[in-house]
Amino acid sequence: MRNDNVKVILWGFGAMGSGIAEMLLNKKGVEIVGVCDTHPDKVNKSIFEVLGVEKGGRKEVTVSDKVEDIITDKAADIVLLATDSFVKGAYDKIVYCLKKGINVITTAEEMAYPKAQEPELTKELDRIAKENGVTVLGTGINPGLIMDLLVVTLTGACIDVENIIAERVNDLSPFGPAVMEEQGVGITEDEFNRRVEENDLAGHVGFPESINMITDALGWKLSDEIKLTKAPIVSSVYRKAPYAEVEPGNVAGCNMKGYGYVDGELKIEMLHPQQVEPHLENIKTGDYITIKGTPDISMKITPEVPGGIGTIAMTVNMIPNVINARPGLKTMIDLPVPRAIMGDMREFIED
Amino acid sequence: MRNDNVKVILWGFGAMGSGIAEMLLNKKGVEIVGVCDTHPDKVNKSIFEVLGVEKGGRKEVTVSDKVEDIITDKAADIVLLATDSFVKGAYDKIVYCLKKGINVITTAEEMAYPKAQEPELTKELDRIAKENGVTVLGTGINPGLIMDLLVVTLTGACIDVENIIAERVNDLSPFGPAVMEEQGVGITEDEFNRRVEENDLAGHVGFPESINMITDALGWKLSDEIKLTKAPIVSSVYRKAPYAEVEPGNVAGCNMKGYGYVDGELKIEMLHPQQVEPHLENIKTGDYITIKGTPDISMKITPEVPGGIGTIAMTVNMIPNVINARPGLKTMIDLPVPRAIMGDMREFIED
Repeated sequence: MRNDNVKVILWGFGAMGSGIAEMLLNKKGVEIVGVCDTHPDKVNKSIFEVLGVEKGGRKEVTVSDKVEDIITDKAADIVLLATDSFVKGAYDKIVYCLKKGINVITTAEEMAYPKAQEPELTKELDRIAKENGVTVLGTGINPGLIMDLLVVTLTGACIDVENIIAERVNDLSPFGPAVMEEQGVGITEDEFNRRVEENDLAGHVGFPESINMITDALGWKLSDEIKLTKAPIVSSVYRKAPYAEVEPGNVAGCNMKGYGYVDGELKIEMLHPQQVEPHLENIKTGDYITIKGTPDISMKITPEVPGGIGTIAMTVNMIPNVINARPGLKTMIDLPVPRAIMGDMREFIED
Repeated sequence: MRNDNVKVILWGFGAMGSGIAEMLLNKKGVEIVGVCDTHPDKVNKSIFEVLGVEKGGRKEVTVSDKVEDIITDKAADIVLLATDSFVKGAYDKIVYCLKKGINVITTAEEMAYPKAQEPELTKELDRIAKENGVTVLGTGINPGLIMDLLVVTLTGACIDVENIIAERVNDLSPFGPAVMEEQGVGITEDEFNRRVEENDLAGHVGFPESINMITDALGWKLSDEIKLTKAPIVSSVYRKAPYAEVEPGNVAGCNMKGYGYVDGELKIEMLHPQQVEPHLENIKTGDYITIKGTPDISMKITPEVPGGIGTIAMTVNMIPNVINARPGLKTMIDLPVPRAIMGDMREFIED
């Protein structure tokens, strides 16, 4: 086992980044050696002050907005990048880290399977990672596990697969203002429809990534463009969450669907209604995977694996797998399975 | 992509081996180049005749009891070994293949995590595999997926894990006479208890393997010996399956439990009642995983993933992962996830 702790730099100290920091502070054999964020309320403050956590015997770490001071040549084993959703937004930041000889895990949803929408940038990332002898992975709860890796894993028990339905019915209530905005929570149905029309409502980011991850894993070739639909979940009751308020008749969330076709046939169906306070209308949350094949497999996780905690956990738990991987751009289907790191993280690192 | 098909030799042509053969015959980019078995009804017969499958345009393959004629230097990419349950029984056969420069996947339950009970043989297998530049893996539905790899994968979404319960309630009806014998199906309660006493009733083979796979994956250290219990499932009704008959008051199966302790605390509980025709007493079959932690995760697969089909599928579906792996002895937590091979198998093999 190596003597020194696994060294982590966090780039992005919002809801995900600060949750990742709290998780890391409670793990053995790993330490945070730098944090980058540009938010004026956080810059130049102690991360312990920002988190409201006792510093104890730990070394001081101050939030910095000067990436070039923090992310220097081999300054850490890994950077955890939680700043973006899209490959285009995260690309320059990832390249910056790779060129400093540092591995990267990012929560950017499109990076879970970047080939799906950005094949050219994907090749570049793979090339640059290999050139620098390091690895880059995108992960999170979804995309990253629930509607893709877990589906793929269950098909491992199948002689044959006819088609797949993955459904995730989840509660958006714990999320912050950015998510409420992306999902159209609290707005009118007309505004929701107008924003969908104008391509100004993100909804869930990840269906093309999850669908391509599954088809590539199974050796299916998509024959048609992936179809995506977004519909407003109109509330019949008043709903209130920490960062949202929904009047009856207005939008409580976004019901997103995605469809993948092989030889013109619908093979993969993704159903993902996300809303605040679903229980107020007796909606049960859960994760559901239905595989029609030999054999049929019908899986349920109820309630759903929570999104925020799940993404934080996946990001930290994949650190050893990424450090141990061969250089290049990897996805969840290329690496060993994620696992809760309950022991000393150094013991998970291969010599 | 390579031009020639992936070449497979089957060693063992019983229920598992012949199921594997049928699956392989329906896949693209892979061919069976040899089959070894000693059963007098099968030796020197065409595998197509034994399987009752049309030969079509395929090359003839004859069942042989002369391993040394079939398993020669690099005669195949991989041997699928379905002859044994225990490491000790499979060991010489695995070594034989490795020394011929051929990868091995075995269904031997103890090989799913051989370190659990045979740490010295495990080291030897790893050494011999590396020396010959090939890889060996043990897999199957359970151990191999349901009560171990799937548990580990779900903990990947956890910041913290308190304890784990894995339960598999399954139907033994489709299995053959060997399984009925191992599980004590059809015998009296007294005989069952006597055989348990005399250590002459196998029950489920795999709990030490599954428990050690989970603890090693999470970085937990077992503090006590793993506890195993076997109890008769006494039927109150008459039950009949193709290879078993159970009078009321006699044994319909074996309820096996396993317990893993960390720091003296019960951390992993395995519950696995296996019986013929459970529906006759309104018992619902299924696979259940309950993780207490942050977050709690509660997963159900109903009905259970069937054991026979599942093991056949896992064995075939892991072929590319094993061929692509670095040399040595691997377990399911070292390799990328299993996946249904729906395309040409050659496309799954890395250059």
